[in-house]
Amino acid sequence: MSNVITPRHEDPARWYTDVVTRSELADYSPVKGCMVIRPLGYALWERIQGYLDARFKETGHQNAYFPLFIPESFLHREKAHVEGFSPELAVVTIGGGKELEEKLVVRPTSETIIYSMFSKWIRSYRDLPLLLNQWSNVVRWEMRTRLFLRTTEFLWQEGHTAHATEREAEEETLRILGLYNDFAHTQMAIPVLKGLKSEQEKFAGAQKTYCIEALMQDGKALQAGTTHNLGQNFSKAFDVKFQNQEGGIEHVWQTSWGVSTRLVGALVLAHGDDQGLILPPALAPIQVAVVPIWKSDEERTNVKQSVEKLQAALGTVARIHIDLRDEVSPGFKFNEWELKGVPLRLEVGPRDLAKGQATAVSRLDRTKEAISLESLESYLPELLARIQRSLYERALKFRSENTRPAGTYAEFKEQLESLGGFYEAFWCRNPQCETKIKEETKATIRCIPLEGQDSEGACLYCGSLSRTRVILARAY
Amino acid sequence: MSNVITPRHEDPARWYTDVVTRSELADYSPVKGCMVIRPLGYALWERIQGYLDARFKETGHQNAYFPLFIPESFLHREKAHVEGFSPELAVVTIGGGKELEEKLVVRPTSETIIYSMFSKWIRSYRDLPLLLNQWSNVVRWEMRTRLFLRTTEFLWQEGHTAHATEREAEEETLRILGLYNDFAHTQMAIPVLKGLKSEQEKFAGAQKTYCIEALMQDGKALQAGTTHNLGQNFSKAFDVKFQNQEGGIEHVWQTSWGVSTRLVGALVLAHGDDQGLILPPALAPIQVAVVPIWKSDEERTNVKQSVEKLQAALGTVARIHIDLRDEVSPGFKFNEWELKGVPLRLEVGPRDLAKGQATAVSRLDRTKEAISLESLESYLPELLARIQRSLYERALKFRSENTRPAGTYAEFKEQLESLGGFYEAFWCRNPQCETKIKEETKATIRCIPLEGQDSEGACLYCGSLSRTRVILARAY
Repeated sequence: MSNVITPRHEDPARWYTDVVTRSELADYSPVKGCMVIRPLGYALWERIQGYLDARFKETGHQNAYFPLFIPESFLHREKAHVEGFSPELAVVTIGGGKELEEKLVVRPTSETIIYSMFSKWIRSYRDLPLLLNQWSNVVRWEMRTRLFLRTTEFLWQEGHTAHATEREAEEETLRILGLYNDFAHTQMAIPVLKGLKSEQEKFAGAQKTYCIEALMQDGKALQAGTTHNLGQNFSKAFDVKFQNQEGGIEHVWQTSWGVSTRLVGALVLAHGDDQGLILPPALAPIQVAVVPIWKSDEERTNVKQSVEKLQAALGTVARIHIDLRDEVSPGFKFNEWELKGVPLRLEVGPRDLAKGQATAVSRLDRTKEAISLESLESYLPELLARIQRSLYERALKFRSENTRPAGTYAEFKEQLESLGGFYEAFWCRNPQCETKIKEETKATIRCIPLEGQDSEGACLYCGSLSRTRVILARAY
Repeated sequence: MSNVITPRHEDPARWYTDVVTRSELADYSPVKGCMVIRPLGYALWERIQGYLDARFKETGHQNAYFPLFIPESFLHREKAHVEGFSPELAVVTIGGGKELEEKLVVRPTSETIIYSMFSKWIRSYRDLPLLLNQWSNVVRWEMRTRLFLRTTEFLWQEGHTAHATEREAEEETLRILGLYNDFAHTQMAIPVLKGLKSEQEKFAGAQKTYCIEALMQDGKALQAGTTHNLGQNFSKAFDVKFQNQEGGIEHVWQTSWGVSTRLVGALVLAHGDDQGLILPPALAPIQVAVVPIWKSDEERTNVKQSVEKLQAALGTVARIHIDLRDEVSPGFKFNEWELKGVPLRLEVGPRDLAKGQATAVSRLDRTKEAISLESLESYLPELLARIQRSLYERALKFRSENTRPAGTYAEFKEQLESLGGFYEAFWCRNPQCETKIKEETKATIRCIPLEGQDSEGACLYCGSLSRTRVILARAY
């Protein structure tokens, strides 16, 4: 394994790929655009799943599983939806050695197949709300792919709900947005902005799309999750109706929402450095790597005994790994656990043991601290919580320093080019201004933040008086 | 929801479908051969996953994820493998609106794509053993499908390992077989036989296939899990080599193994009755359904308060659901929880409360028992354990009563036709005898049991002296 990582300031794209592949988060596969998620990357995804799945269930959602294949005709029933997804489809035309009568699309998202079932299951207001979630793989034929961030196949969860009223659907859309927001802040240690997408940027088939938007260390934005208020667009296309309490027949109001394995890429981009990954303790599969240090065989025996005792004592308060390999040096181990982003390293050598202590080294800033072995059990969780907090604060500080008022359009273009980052601006809501900005600067309206919509100013592009405050950035 | 289930003795196939669809385990989808796994079915699958995933990790396996698509040429590298799977493939020929240069097969199983990565990752004996598992969907184009038992798409786990020696690979193959066996006995409450598949019945590309075989209540066998010793078949086809400790280069020895959502179907067939599902407490998403009974509003208030207290007290010792619905009667609720297989029902009415008790009704045999509210917390786990045990014992008794010596070939044919069940026989190991039996009786050699291979007898078909004892049955 070569540990050499291209420094980020030299080439951010190479740096990203180096970190992902060398830390063994993921690898390229022989199938164009598809990745292999290696054990470290998958363990992160399992932690993401674990947290979110528990929150979904607490809020009344149940998991289910719908077919991978969607009859081509289903996609055509919602006009905006098929227009949005048509260019990206993988299509099965042969099954069991025979040409299929109707082609089957490999799901790019499952609104159409799921709502065809909703129309069968929902009869009465008593069947509502119907709150489902699915963990699955989806396929979107992408021309330019990047590990985790944009791959032809990816893993995700997609929530799909049906409600009796428009208000309930809107509440659900915002409830899940809040849940995603909490997840990003408390688990990923990534500050995100909650906002609304513009009409151009919203999900194909949605009435409104909300999102959480994050800023990466290279100054580019990353959309980390979206929730869609679908209104009655799909319930009309798929004839999902219910009898209300008064006996009348209405179409249901729907939402869908999702986050994907892209979040693993966000962790790399938001926190990593030239030594590799830095994982937030809340999500790190290994929180503490214990590296024993010895020279003689006698030292080896003593140190080994001591660290094995540590594992027994600390195994219940932290996810701990004892690295007992003989064939590599302590220095090699230090580098490897740094590369893999383990938040805390505990070095234990004969001199430490003589003093009844171990040396803790934070992955975040390499600060060293001698800790008495007796206090480790109570102190370790505290130390990990502190690293989690510091990681978040560092990311928040970075975002504050890299969020700027756009100024004039010329100033905006110049700063965007040289500095990247988020830009605050007003927008007249004319799609033409949005398109022009995108064409001329490659920046997009990342979101209309839910907070701070109480002022007015000149549209960044056309200068007309505007009441909509937006965040602009170049994005992944 | 219509609760009417076709009695099993009238039509076992209809009974099965009725139970699966009316209990809302699963539903038919608009895509031929593909099913929708509804929340109850998926919750069972999550429990199956939870148990197995923990055991896989305890035995040193890590999860990873490999692409859904496999280049067609990969399948052709192992001759037996491609011959086995070719007739069942779904093939993507169009991606992003264009005809693909190389067709992509939707994975029917992942040996080929995974081992192409192994050849990149494995260099030295230090990289071994490599112990991976994947939870995923797979697709096999089936002509005749049945919910859970045989569907075009299904969910499963597939383990894939590489070892330095033939012995280690064989040990792994048997270790996982043992793990599956324990799972079936302790969680599914289904007695299974551990055995070896015949050459004709083994996995396409394996050197040896082991299996666990169960007997269903309709007298048909069901293969519940398989583990394959792949030898060096795939490592030679995919050039997976390593440097051994002496510096020589060798091909690795491999295993693969899997269980699927078919296990949910096995639960239905092994335990269900004319009232619906019967779920083993170890896997039941809801173990105890509490049905409050009231007539007046005053009774309603009192009973409701009491059962809510129960939930708080019992929530930590059992998976409990309080059914507070107003719009349906207690009788309706009884039927519904029976249909959905909840192992234990607790009835709580004013008369029970006056006596400080609740009435527990077992799903297995409808035995009723009055239990004082105070002792519920300690007694409930005991009661659930007893139901788990009784369910297993009932299934074991059924299997014992329906496992018969084959006798003469004529006797075997007659009994098989009228009684179904497992038949013990000797077999000369000639594939022609095996084929003839299959053609003439539709029974197959389910397995060569690992135990009891210390006697000899006449081959069931040709009569020659044989040392191989086999189990024959018609199978799903």
